[in-house]
Amino acid sequence: ELKAEAAAKKKKSNYKLGGRVHIDQWTFSESDEGINVIENEDPDFSPENRWLFRRIRLELAGEVPQNMLYRIQVDFNNPASAEIKDAYLGWTNLPNNQTLILGHQKRPLGLDHLNSSRYNVFTERPLAVEAFNEDARRFGLCMYGHNDDESVGWAYGIYNLENISTDGRFIGDSYQMGGYSRLWSSPWYDETSGGRGYLHLAIAGAVAKPDGDVGDDETNSNEGRFRTRPLARSDQRWLNTTRIPGADWYQHIAFESILNLGSLQITGEYIMTPLQREATPGAAIPADPDDLPGYAFDANLSRNMFFHGGYIYASYFLTGEHMPYQRSSGTLDRVKPHENFFLVDRMRGGRGLGWGAWQVAARYDFLDLTDGGVNGGVGHMFTAGLNWHWTPYSKVQNNLVYGSIDDSGLANLTGGTAVDAGDFLIFGSRFMIDF
Amino acid sequence: ELKAEAAAKKKKSNYKLGGRVHIDQWTFSESDEGINVIENEDPDFSPENRWLFRRIRLELAGEVPQNMLYRIQVDFNNPASAEIKDAYLGWTNLPNNQTLILGHQKRPLGLDHLNSSRYNVFTERPLAVEAFNEDARRFGLCMYGHNDDESVGWAYGIYNLENISTDGRFIGDSYQMGGYSRLWSSPWYDETSGGRGYLHLAIAGAVAKPDGDVGDDETNSNEGRFRTRPLARSDQRWLNTTRIPGADWYQHIAFESILNLGSLQITGEYIMTPLQREATPGAAIPADPDDLPGYAFDANLSRNMFFHGGYIYASYFLTGEHMPYQRSSGTLDRVKPHENFFLVDRMRGGRGLGWGAWQVAARYDFLDLTDGGVNGGVGHMFTAGLNWHWTPYSKVQNNLVYGSIDDSGLANLTGGTAVDAGDFLIFGSRFMIDF
Amino acid sequence: ELKAEAAAKKKKSNYKLGGRVHIDQWTFSESDEGINVIENEDPDFSPENRWLFRRIRLELAGEVPQNMLYRIQVDFNNPASAEIKDAYLGWTNLPNNQTLILGHQKRPLGLDHLNSSRYNVFTERPLAVEAFNEDARRFGLCMYGHNDDESVGWAYGIYNLENISTDGRFIGDSYQMGGYSRLWSSPWYDETSGGRGYLHLAIAGAVAKPDGDVGDDETNSNEGRFRTRPLARSDQRWLNTTRIPGADWYQHIAFESILNLGSLQITGEYIMTPLQREATPGAAIPADPDDLPGYAFDANLSRNMFFHGGYIYASYFLTGEHMPYQRSSGTLDRVKPHENFFLVDRMRGGRGLGWGAWQVAARYDFLDLTDGGVNGGVGHMFTAGLNWHWTPYSKVQNNLVYGSIDDSGLANLTGGTAVDAGDFLIFGSRFMIDF
Repeated sequence: ELKAEAAAKKKKSNYKLGGRVHIDQWTFSESDEGINVIENEDPDFSPENRWLFRRIRLELAGEVPQNMLYRIQVDFNNPASAEIKDAYLGWTNLPNNQTLILGHQKRPLGLDHLNSSRYNVFTERPLAVEAFNEDARRFGLCMYGHNDDESVGWAYGIYNLENISTDGRFIGDSYQMGGYSRLWSSPWYDETSGGRGYLHLAIAGAVAKPDGDVGDDETNSNEGRFRTRPLARSDQRWLNTTRIPGADWYQHIAFESILNLGSLQITGEYIMTPLQREATPGAAIPADPDDLPGYAFDANLSRNMFFHGGYIYASYFLTGEHMPYQRSSGTLDRVKPHENFFLVDRMRGGRGLGWGAWQVAARYDFLDLTDGGVNGGVGHMFTAGLNWHWTPYSKVQNNLVYGSIDDSGLANLTGGTAVDAGDFLIFGSRFMIDF
Repeated sequence: ELKAEAAAKKKKSNYKLGGRVHIDQWTFSESDEGINVIENEDPDFSPENRWLFRRIRLELAGEVPQNMLYRIQVDFNNPASAEIKDAYLGWTNLPNNQTLILGHQKRPLGLDHLNSSRYNVFTERPLAVEAFNEDARRFGLCMYGHNDDESVGWAYGIYNLENISTDGRFIGDSYQMGGYSRLWSSPWYDETSGGRGYLHLAIAGAVAKPDGDVGDDETNSNEGRFRTRPLARSDQRWLNTTRIPGADWYQHIAFESILNLGSLQITGEYIMTPLQREATPGAAIPADPDDLPGYAFDANLSRNMFFHGGYIYASYFLTGEHMPYQRSSGTLDRVKPHENFFLVDRMRGGRGLGWGAWQVAARYDFLDLTDGGVNGGVGHMFTAGLNWHWTPYSKVQNNLVYGSIDDSGLANLTGGTAVDAGDFLIFGSRFMIDF
Repeated sequence: ELKAEAAAKKKKSNYKLGGRVHIDQWTFSESDEGINVIENEDPDFSPENRWLFRRIRLELAGEVPQNMLYRIQVDFNNPASAEIKDAYLGWTNLPNNQTLILGHQKRPLGLDHLNSSRYNVFTERPLAVEAFNEDARRFGLCMYGHNDDESVGWAYGIYNLENISTDGRFIGDSYQMGGYSRLWSSPWYDETSGGRGYLHLAIAGAVAKPDGDVGDDETNSNEGRFRTRPLARSDQRWLNTTRIPGADWYQHIAFESILNLGSLQITGEYIMTPLQREATPGAAIPADPDDLPGYAFDANLSRNMFFHGGYIYASYFLTGEHMPYQRSSGTLDRVKPHENFFLVDRMRGGRGLGWGAWQVAARYDFLDLTDGGVNGGVGHMFTAGLNWHWTPYSKVQNNLVYGSIDDSGLANLTGGTAVDAGDFLIFGSRFMIDF
């Protein structure tokens, strides 16, 4: 009878329902005039403090008999303007442990983007990862696979470059596409300790063809642009190349590594992005692309540009836990505290208290978006983090970010070219639960 | 104990969670100048190609003890502007196998609209069905029933004419209402072959009272209008009467038939729509209703107009399956491939391959929206379809549409009256999964 | 084995999925000229009738092991502009039967707001409750608890004053906060009759600090404002202080009582709201705050103002049921009809009919928002209600509202100061189901 039941189940689609709530607090403690201009177009008006829902996600995922899967994930953090996150269908059990997925999904570039926001060590993702893979998800077709013992994995796919998370469509005869691939391995993974020791190495690459000469009447926009916020939820992207006129091709080459030794983890990534412009004789350089006041390209834009960035962090559990790793996907996994947080009345009187897990971390970030006449800015940022894990499903992350931005055309107060924007100090907290 | 459990279950409401993801690709291969004008107001700018989420739906439906039901279905295909699809409550087990439903639901007009988008043979619904029952769902109260052996079924209800799928409300003292009804039967249904042979016949009718003289300060809009896209997801509706001034009453009379013989199905519908205008002496005819540049009514609009359209299609399974039919609702049902698609490594080496189900189909569509001074256009379209069913829950549909539009005031390049818009060729694919 | 299963369950998060559909009809039968001006800025254009989805909610709530909970509730009544309702995480099993909740949640002020919209006796909530706790939910941190026998309960928390239900964030350096608390008790609760007799008494208070001097370039808005609709879903709030310039502090003191004697319930609340303005020498009083044409403050605004309001209602079940009460939260609970509504064909022929539960109710509402130069209006309204409960999960509510508004600056037709807006008569129905 159980057999019959199992057989019947196999004929029906199934689902798993999940979700997450991430609540943020951001305090912009200190900021120089140039930073104020970038954020508010006013040297005397510093970035505003804020509380916000960073993520309110509902997700539904499951399988369809046989050998197909689906996933729908909607984010209501700004409820009147919901965003689609994952929305795809796929074919599983393909030869060589492969799965093929069609739809809105993450591009395989940047370890910290591929790690779920539920498992990231720091509140916001690194500059380089966010700048070169903005918002991570695009519409595409991607193959995921791994070898039998999961020591090597791969992903390769083709994606459209437009971000359609709020409107669900890309319209226009310029299909701006990119090919993305990632190859990862965990040459050392200590099974006997349950994965408390491992080494992760990966390389990723991409070749993309934006349309740097989109006409005014076309629906497409030039996707030759890299930008990111300052490791915090500011209004503006403080590092921003804006849309680069004539952008024709660009590439990414990225390196990842994780070394995990029990409670200690050391992780680093580096991403290089060369970009080639078309020679369009006599094409005017727009003075104020993207309606960013004060921003200007240099008079002579180069044919070839080079942007790059990276980060390195160390994290350590004071309470002895470790950051788990999932070999088949080459990403970090859910932390399980040795003891959950609790504060309860004991049956026999008195109070019981559990402390949860405590993790400290420090990160250095670097991103250079100024080259060849593009004045996107050069950022250096230091982040100190303290994570208090209440349960495997909930925690609070506290981040203190100190940084500086140089060579930025966005901070231009005087009508000249690039200037130093200055320094800033930001404190943020994220209260998180998922289920 | 099982009895007690069953009794307890009866006292609680239940739910079934479901959803669907439909991903479209549309390529506008060829288009004449008039078509370009209709779509883009520019004879030299052809319709833009596109990829889009056609449907990302989550739905929750169930029963409330006793004898009541509910259903909520939200579509996130354009996530920042979600749409409500079904949203209703109802009373079940009423005398004569009837169910009464109050809320946002489909109007019982047009077989191909009543068929779920999961089961439609062609990617987009026929011109006549979409033009005369645009988007199908309205707010209303409708009774559904059938006789004991399900050979005859009926639906009748009263609906508001305004489409409230994006704002959830109709406001204004003009309650523009319509009475809709449909009577269907399956005089032949071959039980012994599991429904591989059947004949479906149905008639549907409606009487609607739009308010063709809505004042400028009122919130209502004149719902005396019929329009549709060209069997593809273009930006504009290429056949469009626009809002007909003084529209006072209109009626629909519709005929449906399906003949299914094993893998072969032949289906046709025809819908007639007479419309009567009020005689408003001296009322000016607006030159450019609905802000459609170049469109104009004739100087003398008739008191009576007649619009009509229809289609016929044949579909055939190369792999032997058939299109199932649900007698109680008079609509098509889910196709079950004899063999699912799969491509797997076999245990003993080598690869296993399943081919899924393959279906070919051809449709001829006709719609006449030009009469009595209204220049909505006359369309003729031919569609060739190829469906590859991977599983009962997933497939890809490929459609090649060739068509022409004549007598259209929308394609007016010269300031004269109606002209021929010309021909076009469109190729579309839809990747679908539901659960 | 059951034990192992139970233990495994304890390690996984769980969820309960629910929802509700509320469908409204509102007919504005009679309205004087001043009312027409408030609603439509035109003395001859009376409020428009309407049908609307009042609520289309999906909710997901559950627990995370151990001792944490979450809840996400999204409202799609206006689907293209969804609203977040509950969105929070919390810690349970804290000492003294307490639970601490962080996120978007109801403020503990106004019994009728704390009662779920599923259980309210009248279609819309009382004037005073809605005016002084507009939309109830804010972002905050609140502790909820009760004593061991649940005869006494309490809630206290700190909330931001901005309504972020549509955008999910408050941005700006003015963190306008309020401390809210409520203490309730049920000194009499008749256990032997299953709670058919009880007395509820409660007191609630709040101290809030709005920023009445928000600068033009800041993202914050002055939250020193009280307003409400006329117990019906009109376009405008007919009683409205508008944003009070210089508002510096305000307080709420509120009293609640319920006396339930079997089928009869008598409930009343009274809320006082003193407000203190900053003395800003020479600050100009805006003539037309909030873009409400015709509205003006008096030339000399007082330093201190006093607004207040309340209501009393009696409800009675003709069919013998009672309104249940939940002691731990101090709120009303789900009504269970003795017999559900049904109309069915009997097996042996003939029809079976169940009548459901029938409840009549009458309410008097009072609200005074005119004081110290603020001309928000004084409203008196009488509501007669008839509720037909079909099942514990579904009913229709019918309300007839007769009211008058005096001393209102919103109804100013002549450019003078406050005038009498006049009388109105409204009929509304709400069709409801939840699951």
